[in-house]
Amino acid sequence: MAEKGNKYGTHRVVEPQGVLTQAAQRISNDMAKLYTNEIICDVISLNIDSASFTQIKETCGKDPQKIEEMILGIVGERGKMQNPVTGSGGMFIGTVAYIGKDLKDRGLKIGDKIASLVSLSLTPLKIERIKKIHMDIDKVDIEGKAVLFESAIYAKLPDDMSEALALAALDVAGAPAQTAKLVKPGDSVLILGAGGKSGILSGFEAVKRASPTGSVIASVRRESQGKELIELGSCTDYIVADATQPVDLLEKALEANGGNEYDISISCVNVEACEMAAILPVRNGGIVYFFSMATSFTRAALGAEGVGKDVTMLVGNGYTKDHAEITLRELRESEKIRNLFNAKYI
Amino acid sequence: MAEKGNKYGTHRVVEPQGVLTQAAQRISNDMAKLYTNEIICDVISLNIDSASFTQIKETCGKDPQKIEEMILGIVGERGKMQNPVTGSGGMFIGTVAYIGKDLKDRGLKIGDKIASLVSLSLTPLKIERIKKIHMDIDKVDIEGKAVLFESAIYAKLPDDMSEALALAALDVAGAPAQTAKLVKPGDSVLILGAGGKSGILSGFEAVKRASPTGSVIASVRRESQGKELIELGSCTDYIVADATQPVDLLEKALEANGGNEYDISISCVNVEACEMAAILPVRNGGIVYFFSMATSFTRAALGAEGVGKDVTMLVGNGYTKDHAEITLRELRESEKIRNLFNAKYI
Repeated sequence: MAEKGNKYGTHRVVEPQGVLTQAAQRISNDMAKLYTNEIICDVISLNIDSASFTQIKETCGKDPQKIEEMILGIVGERGKMQNPVTGSGGMFIGTVAYIGKDLKDRGLKIGDKIASLVSLSLTPLKIERIKKIHMDIDKVDIEGKAVLFESAIYAKLPDDMSEALALAALDVAGAPAQTAKLVKPGDSVLILGAGGKSGILSGFEAVKRASPTGSVIASVRRESQGKELIELGSCTDYIVADATQPVDLLEKALEANGGNEYDISISCVNVEACEMAAILPVRNGGIVYFFSMATSFTRAALGAEGVGKDVTMLVGNGYTKDHAEITLRELRESEKIRNLFNAKYI
Repeated sequence: MAEKGNKYGTHRVVEPQGVLTQAAQRISNDMAKLYTNEIICDVISLNIDSASFTQIKETCGKDPQKIEEMILGIVGERGKMQNPVTGSGGMFIGTVAYIGKDLKDRGLKIGDKIASLVSLSLTPLKIERIKKIHMDIDKVDIEGKAVLFESAIYAKLPDDMSEALALAALDVAGAPAQTAKLVKPGDSVLILGAGGKSGILSGFEAVKRASPTGSVIASVRRESQGKELIELGSCTDYIVADATQPVDLLEKALEANGGNEYDISISCVNVEACEMAAILPVRNGGIVYFFSMATSFTRAALGAEGVGKDVTMLVGNGYTKDHAEITLRELRESEKIRNLFNAKYI
């Protein structure tokens, strides 16, 4: 008789006790004992996190045999594919093999092909054998099983596009999905780092949600990027500015918005010290959404106070409800974005 | 004829051009040229930031004459009291000497005694002479002038309490004011680091706004703190837990809330790695408000994603509209909080 595990998977923590599975040194990858709120998948492949795979390759002198041994060693010891040096994991692709009875209402069925959207660094994994190591794309085909906890997020892989295309978009799904929820018709939106993957998808969503009366201004580094974004439908206008130069960016951003401050700014710019460029152009009572991992909490908090800005500043959560569906819908709607992603990101 | 300056004071940046006054090496402290959107104050005293004053004292071997020369040197060179080593400033107390015509509607009059709530690291300052150095409280009495830009925030010092008491509360005014705006009647609220200055004030506000049907649970490190907070009216119940142990804290927090997840958590805990303790107890769709400067942006963003939590995470802005009024009102309402602050924080 299967019992119910902890929502976050703490029932599988072996040591040290009291932490979550990501922080644990070792977790249980016992696939024989079934829990009513777990999903077990037959794993097809592991997409190892780039920092982790690079470290493994270097340690092993790129010798496939040694890499195989090292991966089997890590998973054997820790019960999960978490690189002990980098701390990072990656994600897996697999087919659903078991669905606990508490999770029957998830819309999943045995055999569905899914991608895990939580890190391998917290996911119980058992490898029977390694089938192939794809050295250049950080991918390892295996035979084995992995567990998804009740709290885990994942996406059913769609039939109507390539796996690689879907994964490239799902990688940043939090940003466009949050954008879709924040932006209202008539809003003026400023997007920093608009030319990157998350910027393109967030901009497209912002244009859709702000229309027909709103405006979405993209901040980019090169004129050509701005033109491309208009062509893609990821902005209504653009400025060429450097987000590390907040005063100059502010002036250009205000000019592009008829002299008015913005309702919302969205920072996807993957460079340090761009917090003020996201804060200054926004009106009092407006929203600053930081999706960039280069964001400094203290620079944002003290920066807004220093200029007396009463803005709501949001930490970009990688997950929000329906984030996969919202993001994949963009690829379905826009042939131009599909083509760009196929050319550039896979 | 006075002209209008930039809202953020960039018209006073001397070098390097293109940055805000905080990032500038040197700004103009010319008090003869008047701008229509500036306020000039006769400064009474500078409250030097603790990190800065410690560095100055150590460099000068605590010699008052040398400290005086060093402060005059910094301000003479930079046009502001920004310690070149620590980068930090402090705040000033002074009386209003000039109000530009664009700021006539601020409810200020010549002679009003105010405290600046923006950092000295971005405030034009001219010192005529140093009158006294209060070595133990990081305070320097001076004769001189300082400028507040249109964007600057400040508070009129109240007549009904001591200056020191008002300043001790205003120091963390952002947290209780944001709490007052976030918490609604019936909400369940969890406060981490509830026993510190910002925790006490935020808890009091949360109880006020959640009442009569809501609950405010304080997480503290010692039983005695919990009892004190109930006595103060800063919580309705408490748990004794360690915020660096999220699983244990989660269990205790849920138990204290009838097994239910919280609508809002507020983190005032000044320790690293407490993000998960703030995220886990909150329901999907709830709010996590990070006021602690020890918060890591990436730990929060990746942590919420890892456990599939669709929560709105807010960066604690030190400023929000009416933050000084909301915070001082607490001191006026509660004799117990006044007594505690007088005993402990001034």
